[in-house]
Amino acid sequence: MSDTQMPPAHPFDDDKLKEECGIFGVVGVTDAANFVALGLHALQHRGQEAGGIVSHHPEHGFNSARRFGYVRDNFTSHRLMETLPGELAIGHVRYSTAGSKGQTQIRDVQPFFGEFSMGGAAIAHNGNITNAIALRKELIERGSIFQSSSDSECIIHLMARSLQRNIPERMEDALRRVEGAFSVVAMTRTKLIGVRDPLGVRPLVLGKIGDGWALSSETCALDIIGAEYVREIEPGEMVVITADKGVDSIRPFRPQKSRFCIFEHVYFSRPDSIIGDRSVYETRRQIGVELARETPVEADLVCPVPDSGTPAAIGYAHESGIPYGMGIIRNQYMGRTFIEPTEQIRNMGVRLKLNVNRALIKGKRVILVDDSVVRGTTSRKIKEMILDAGAAEVHFRIASPPTAWPCFYGVDTPQREKLLAATMSEDEMREHLGVDSLRFISLDGLYRAVGEASGRDPKSPQYCDACFSGEYPVEPSDMVEKGFQMKAAE
Amino acid sequence: MSDTQMPPAHPFDDDKLKEECGIFGVVGVTDAANFVALGLHALQHRGQEAGGIVSHHPEHGFNSARRFGYVRDNFTSHRLMETLPGELAIGHVRYSTAGSKGQTQIRDVQPFFGEFSMGGAAIAHNGNITNAIALRKELIERGSIFQSSSDSECIIHLMARSLQRNIPERMEDALRRVEGAFSVVAMTRTKLIGVRDPLGVRPLVLGKIGDGWALSSETCALDIIGAEYVREIEPGEMVVITADKGVDSIRPFRPQKSRFCIFEHVYFSRPDSIIGDRSVYETRRQIGVELARETPVEADLVCPVPDSGTPAAIGYAHESGIPYGMGIIRNQYMGRTFIEPTEQIRNMGVRLKLNVNRALIKGKRVILVDDSVVRGTTSRKIKEMILDAGAAEVHFRIASPPTAWPCFYGVDTPQREKLLAATMSEDEMREHLGVDSLRFISLDGLYRAVGEASGRDPKSPQYCDACFSGEYPVEPSDMVEKGFQMKAAE
Amino acid sequence: MSDTQMPPAHPFDDDKLKEECGIFGVVGVTDAANFVALGLHALQHRGQEAGGIVSHHPEHGFNSARRFGYVRDNFTSHRLMETLPGELAIGHVRYSTAGSKGQTQIRDVQPFFGEFSMGGAAIAHNGNITNAIALRKELIERGSIFQSSSDSECIIHLMARSLQRNIPERMEDALRRVEGAFSVVAMTRTKLIGVRDPLGVRPLVLGKIGDGWALSSETCALDIIGAEYVREIEPGEMVVITADKGVDSIRPFRPQKSRFCIFEHVYFSRPDSIIGDRSVYETRRQIGVELARETPVEADLVCPVPDSGTPAAIGYAHESGIPYGMGIIRNQYMGRTFIEPTEQIRNMGVRLKLNVNRALIKGKRVILVDDSVVRGTTSRKIKEMILDAGAAEVHFRIASPPTAWPCFYGVDTPQREKLLAATMSEDEMREHLGVDSLRFISLDGLYRAVGEASGRDPKSPQYCDACFSGEYPVEPSDMVEKGFQMKAAE
Amino acid sequence: MSDTQMPPAHPFDDDKLKEECGIFGVVGVTDAANFVALGLHALQHRGQEAGGIVSHHPEHGFNSARRFGYVRDNFTSHRLMETLPGELAIGHVRYSTAGSKGQTQIRDVQPFFGEFSMGGAAIAHNGNITNAIALRKELIERGSIFQSSSDSECIIHLMARSLQRNIPERMEDALRRVEGAFSVVAMTRTKLIGVRDPLGVRPLVLGKIGDGWALSSETCALDIIGAEYVREIEPGEMVVITADKGVDSIRPFRPQKSRFCIFEHVYFSRPDSIIGDRSVYETRRQIGVELARETPVEADLVCPVPDSGTPAAIGYAHESGIPYGMGIIRNQYMGRTFIEPTEQIRNMGVRLKLNVNRALIKGKRVILVDDSVVRGTTSRKIKEMILDAGAAEVHFRIASPPTAWPCFYGVDTPQREKLLAATMSEDEMREHLGVDSLRFISLDGLYRAVGEASGRDPKSPQYCDACFSGEYPVEPSDMVEKGFQMKAAE
Repeated sequence: MSDTQMPPAHPFDDDKLKEECGIFGVVGVTDAANFVALGLHALQHRGQEAGGIVSHHPEHGFNSARRFGYVRDNFTSHRLMETLPGELAIGHVRYSTAGSKGQTQIRDVQPFFGEFSMGGAAIAHNGNITNAIALRKELIERGSIFQSSSDSECIIHLMARSLQRNIPERMEDALRRVEGAFSVVAMTRTKLIGVRDPLGVRPLVLGKIGDGWALSSETCALDIIGAEYVREIEPGEMVVITADKGVDSIRPFRPQKSRFCIFEHVYFSRPDSIIGDRSVYETRRQIGVELARETPVEADLVCPVPDSGTPAAIGYAHESGIPYGMGIIRNQYMGRTFIEPTEQIRNMGVRLKLNVNRALIKGKRVILVDDSVVRGTTSRKIKEMILDAGAAEVHFRIASPPTAWPCFYGVDTPQREKLLAATMSEDEMREHLGVDSLRFISLDGLYRAVGEASGRDPKSPQYCDACFSGEYPVEPSDMVEKGFQMKAAE
Repeated sequence: MSDTQMPPAHPFDDDKLKEECGIFGVVGVTDAANFVALGLHALQHRGQEAGGIVSHHPEHGFNSARRFGYVRDNFTSHRLMETLPGELAIGHVRYSTAGSKGQTQIRDVQPFFGEFSMGGAAIAHNGNITNAIALRKELIERGSIFQSSSDSECIIHLMARSLQRNIPERMEDALRRVEGAFSVVAMTRTKLIGVRDPLGVRPLVLGKIGDGWALSSETCALDIIGAEYVREIEPGEMVVITADKGVDSIRPFRPQKSRFCIFEHVYFSRPDSIIGDRSVYETRRQIGVELARETPVEADLVCPVPDSGTPAAIGYAHESGIPYGMGIIRNQYMGRTFIEPTEQIRNMGVRLKLNVNRALIKGKRVILVDDSVVRGTTSRKIKEMILDAGAAEVHFRIASPPTAWPCFYGVDTPQREKLLAATMSEDEMREHLGVDSLRFISLDGLYRAVGEASGRDPKSPQYCDACFSGEYPVEPSDMVEKGFQMKAAE
Repeated sequence: MSDTQMPPAHPFDDDKLKEECGIFGVVGVTDAANFVALGLHALQHRGQEAGGIVSHHPEHGFNSARRFGYVRDNFTSHRLMETLPGELAIGHVRYSTAGSKGQTQIRDVQPFFGEFSMGGAAIAHNGNITNAIALRKELIERGSIFQSSSDSECIIHLMARSLQRNIPERMEDALRRVEGAFSVVAMTRTKLIGVRDPLGVRPLVLGKIGDGWALSSETCALDIIGAEYVREIEPGEMVVITADKGVDSIRPFRPQKSRFCIFEHVYFSRPDSIIGDRSVYETRRQIGVELARETPVEADLVCPVPDSGTPAAIGYAHESGIPYGMGIIRNQYMGRTFIEPTEQIRNMGVRLKLNVNRALIKGKRVILVDDSVVRGTTSRKIKEMILDAGAAEVHFRIASPPTAWPCFYGVDTPQREKLLAATMSEDEMREHLGVDSLRFISLDGLYRAVGEASGRDPKSPQYCDACFSGEYPVEPSDMVEKGFQMKAAE
Repeated sequence: MSDTQMPPAHPFDDDKLKEECGIFGVVGVTDAANFVALGLHALQHRGQEAGGIVSHHPEHGFNSARRFGYVRDNFTSHRLMETLPGELAIGHVRYSTAGSKGQTQIRDVQPFFGEFSMGGAAIAHNGNITNAIALRKELIERGSIFQSSSDSECIIHLMARSLQRNIPERMEDALRRVEGAFSVVAMTRTKLIGVRDPLGVRPLVLGKIGDGWALSSETCALDIIGAEYVREIEPGEMVVITADKGVDSIRPFRPQKSRFCIFEHVYFSRPDSIIGDRSVYETRRQIGVELARETPVEADLVCPVPDSGTPAAIGYAHESGIPYGMGIIRNQYMGRTFIEPTEQIRNMGVRLKLNVNRALIKGKRVILVDDSVVRGTTSRKIKEMILDAGAAEVHFRIASPPTAWPCFYGVDTPQREKLLAATMSEDEMREHLGVDSLRFISLDGLYRAVGEASGRDPKSPQYCDACFSGEYPVEPSDMVEKGFQMKAAE
């Protein structure tokens, strides 16, 4: 059942993979919801469609607010934040649900809340449950009523049916039934809970703020609230945190070798975040260095496709010795959606957002550095703009290997047929885009850039790189059920 | 858990009992949701806070829209109604939930929807489930997750847990667990369902429109869509209606003697509705006639307190021979709520809504006819306005007996202590209001006016009159649990 | 130049003449703007499209707020009213401008403000300047820049060009150039000013509130603020009021015999207002009495067309001895406009607003009393509803003579061709409406009802009755210029 | 008089000089208003508070729309743009008025429109009229009524009072009375008009699009509509453009040596615009080169203060050989204003917008390159963030000379006392900011970077650089009247 609320998402941002969620939680600080709002603002790049916060206060109980739109437009108002009192709160920003075909509904906006016999709990997650459809079917047959189309609601229902006596144990019970790639923040009346799936595909970090604690998808959100970064929650770890007793670590899952999402390094995470003690910015810059080594070309200018290509372009320029310059300028005033746009606006596409710095480009052999090629639609338009401006040559250099497979772990990817690299060779893509050269970093090069000096271990890859390799560390069983063709074993 | 959305209700309308809901459904007509919107507009007096519609279309499945505010401000727009296709739809308008302390949340707005293994169903109800708290507790213990604070959600969960194979039978199962006073409209993918509780406390009528059928709280909503009034759904009856096979009647409950809400005649229903083959307007006029017989007084003018006192005033004037006149004029442009009103607005009270027709009132002995006295706050202010305008005498005549007991069957009543008649005798009330005389119609007089020639049968009253008599036909078990003191048996 | 802001007005209210404005001003009370807001709320029936308030405070200067929509939805908010400090304020509600073809723009919303070399002044008016087009043309030729399409802006420009030293004298200068029917409230930094045109066509009354003074279109707005009614501003009088020195009366115009608008008695004014020491309600009731005497008919029920026909119906019933009853019930929840309504809503027309009390009407010979017939479109629909409900006969009785001429004095009337009475005889109208009889009160009967015992003086009529008689007391020169055909002199 | 509409501007953007307006016009293309909307979107950096468009269509006349907020949120909607038909349109984006103390009112949003006896004209301007107060006083004394607090309205009134027969000649008349620095786009029913003041302080360029023409503040807005850049309108030139006859050039002013605003090169213009055949980006990069030459320092990292410091930082890094890196990351989701923000939000300041890339900064000697220092408030906060992140040293390098004087030519500058450089020496500033070194580019260095090989000509400077030098090319007479102290002649 759908409930109409939101205009369709912006048509010009659709040529990127999209991280679907950011999560944040805090315990042991006054006005916890305010900190959550700030944290979510710092995580806004992980989901711009909607956000929600749940807080708990001993007197006022659980309170929540869910809103479409940016955190800064909703969760900054004195009047709203007053309704979210307490020293314990969690929140969520989202892009859209894997499950929903069309529009998001406010009831799909997390955190979800459930009232159990021993009290209430709220839960928010980042990632995807790959057996959600099967679980949902089973739960409905046993009499559960789902309020949303979000697969994370399964966790709440599994918890409701657990025979355990307290909520953390019920959550353990529930998580053992769940497959996929997910990080979770949850809360009871007194506890902040964090979980990462056994492979640790999606990120989750722990921070310390005064006498309290914070959980966040990325470290950049710890910075904004002035929290100190403590460590990553480990793959397969569940932490139960109270203001007075601190962090209790539990291992609900069978141990496995970790497979962190390598695309967090490439694109999803903010460059000022730290993953595994490495600056994301520095990793991206290093990708540019590797790319320059692997795919040199004679040119006059290294130019980033703003803003995500910038660090790799800086690295490429530095390594190649070719001058770095801003050949494409981004309009700062682009937002996300238009309501009933004029025909002309609809046809403008990327030109509403980007303009070529004609005087700089003119007559030059230009290396354009972008983070990835998904459908290739934006790349074509950018190439046209660059050529219109009088560039002598256009060379695309891509800071990730060809994206040939969809992600089923909480990232919004087009269907496989729409991925340029799924149907074309590198050379066909070059021709399709109409550029003088097109080169991607190798998978090994990417692994080197993220710190694996000897590259990818083909027997047991250190990261989840399914979008490049087609090797899915967790079987996407719901999708296979729906007919998705896995890569044939070699 | 509360989700802040709405300003508190208007402070000047609070001196009335409030019907909490209106329900409407239609099957077998193109664009069924449009008909539901019109029906709900005609039922708006039964609930002004919010409304919702669910429709079903074979291709597009179930769709819903829920909005705060008037039907006419939401469900008239082409753009919204397009999202609700199909030939089957139900809808609901609501005032507020018995259960909620403060503000309504959009997720409390009916109809509710549940996905069962054999398909979805939507349900809306008018009335109250008196064992809802106990049921809810039991269901939560068994693992149900509630999405709202509304007690009607119990029905959906009971249905989800039923072992029956089809939805109507699951609903029968569910309704047998439920106590209270309620009318229900529900729908599956193909069926429109209507139910009245065994005592038939709340109304529900059946209408025919072209080849289709309609269910409505009142006949006035059949008129607006051009439907023909067929009959009342009987107390304890469940009708299952399909476009092709028509109306199937089922009796899920043990038969009982009916106890229709007598206050529907006095105030809740619209005067142009028909209840039990009697015009509500005519009944109210007849109440005025009885009132004039029972409580005559010498005076110069019979004046209604607008608008609900008007028909009884017309009857009183006719029977007494005293001229009828509009001594109080209502401002047509009053709405319901103010957001952050100025101090002055807050203090204006009833003067924002009513003004005295000074030239008519001056020097006259005035009989004011009102439908009821609840807290008495408005009555006092009206008396002051009338005296300020120079009336020689003020006589209140009330078209219902003293309201001394709260209603637990879907009507918003103040706590017992706030009811003027619960703590004062008629004479104390007269003094409290500061009027020359105050008289209420007798309970027998009221029964005569609604057509019971020999008055109320004290052994087995023909109506539910608990608000006057304290005799509750269904034990309000949740409230008793919370400490409500029933009237001692005599 | 048009500036799009508002949806077109509601299509179902268009079968009435519309008063275009209400004006209110107050001096010498704290938070004067709050009093103006309340006064405008009481005058909302005179204009529902938009409202504006200007206040002055010695420290904060002039401040204004203009808003589309009802007074109660805008000028009740603490936050807005705080921006309008001071002890002197004026305000205005409006329906629409005579001049504008389509939509109103916020800059057309009065009061208008002008900065002169000796200080600022704000002005609001009710009525129409009949030589506005000519004045405007002249002023533009001399270099004035108009900010609105409203003809009252002429007054500000004439004042700006006056050679007088103070604002009241500049206003006198300006008003002497202006022809038409108008009442004005204006303010300088210290003075509240009121003016009525020489014929006194439009109303304006004076009230006393504490140490301050109020000016209002009607007395009902004095009641709401608790002000005492002092007297009418006289035709051709200008009052200049200061908090300390009180009311100074000036006569800027050549004296003429007054010609107050008789339609204020019939329809425009609120029934609880007093005009010339007569209650409007009582006058309307008396119109019903005269109507019963002039146009008797055998019938079973006298039924008002709500709400404007009610007092006359009460009078008719009383005089004729036929029972009075509410055969038509109004939906309280109708507003004014729909944005992009569905086809079905568009076709509903009057049924969205009115329903027949079928049980009362059935089988009866019904006398329907309405205030006027303009286009006749609503009358036809009401007749159909009444017959559908099974009435045996339908007799229309109209509380005003046939409306055969447009008003050019601040009232929104259709073009002459659209007025039913302009093109049909009474008998043709009866046939067109399809009723058993149709009768209007005579012009003499109407004059008797408003207190002129010997009826209308044909040599020198006591009222402006141009809409009935075609005798215009002020030549509508702009309209004649545009081709309007005056009635031939007899 | 003020009319409340808008929350106060965002408190964290206030440490920049603000260009106050962008203007755009187009003639000879279908749906001209759509092109204007796109152009204004590209000029949004010149004014984010509000925007307006006026179009003319032979049948539908002049139409306008004015809205608060971004162009993209208003002027992209099909429904709004349909109301602006025609092949001729002009538009304006604005930041705020020099004159207004507090909030902007919708009536202050340009373009302004005036109806003259020979037809209407609309006008929008960028810049400031330095004798506006005196002109306004004179015009009011002669009977003009001002509708706004904007000084550009003077031009319309002067035109209205001109004795010339056609609008372009009236505009010439008006402009000769006006002093200051301004560029104007205007339109009659058939003509698009552009004017630059005699010194050419503010920019205006001409473009060709198909058979039509465009005028724009900057070339970047020609790019977005696909127009070809033709040339700059020359200082003191007035162009009158019709679709069929093309561009007619007029010289209404006495010729003077041009004094273009040098700050357009430093900060106001978009880097992808071209001024005087030079890319703004390239100029800024060159400023960085000059700065590196003038103010070398040993360090490990050159880091821009995003985004305006980026090109100069690239130049500085290139020239100095010190690696370039993004040490500060901007949150893409910052907007401009908060309504009733929480205390915490209010205190966050720049941290809501910027975060330090800790891993990159840690232990490094960092050169921060920013475009200017105004109040110094943001610079201090950035320095703190950098030191908190563990930088070893912080060296500020500023791509403009010390800003010691306010601009009176259409730029929003703090009062002189608030400018850090007005009250402190460079060394005092360094101490105040608490950095290891602080150096500004020299005025000569800046002149060299913009292409004046031999630097600034002190006898007759090539640019307006009053904000640095205190030498005002046009006397700011209104401000002098108000007490502003000009720099003593040396």
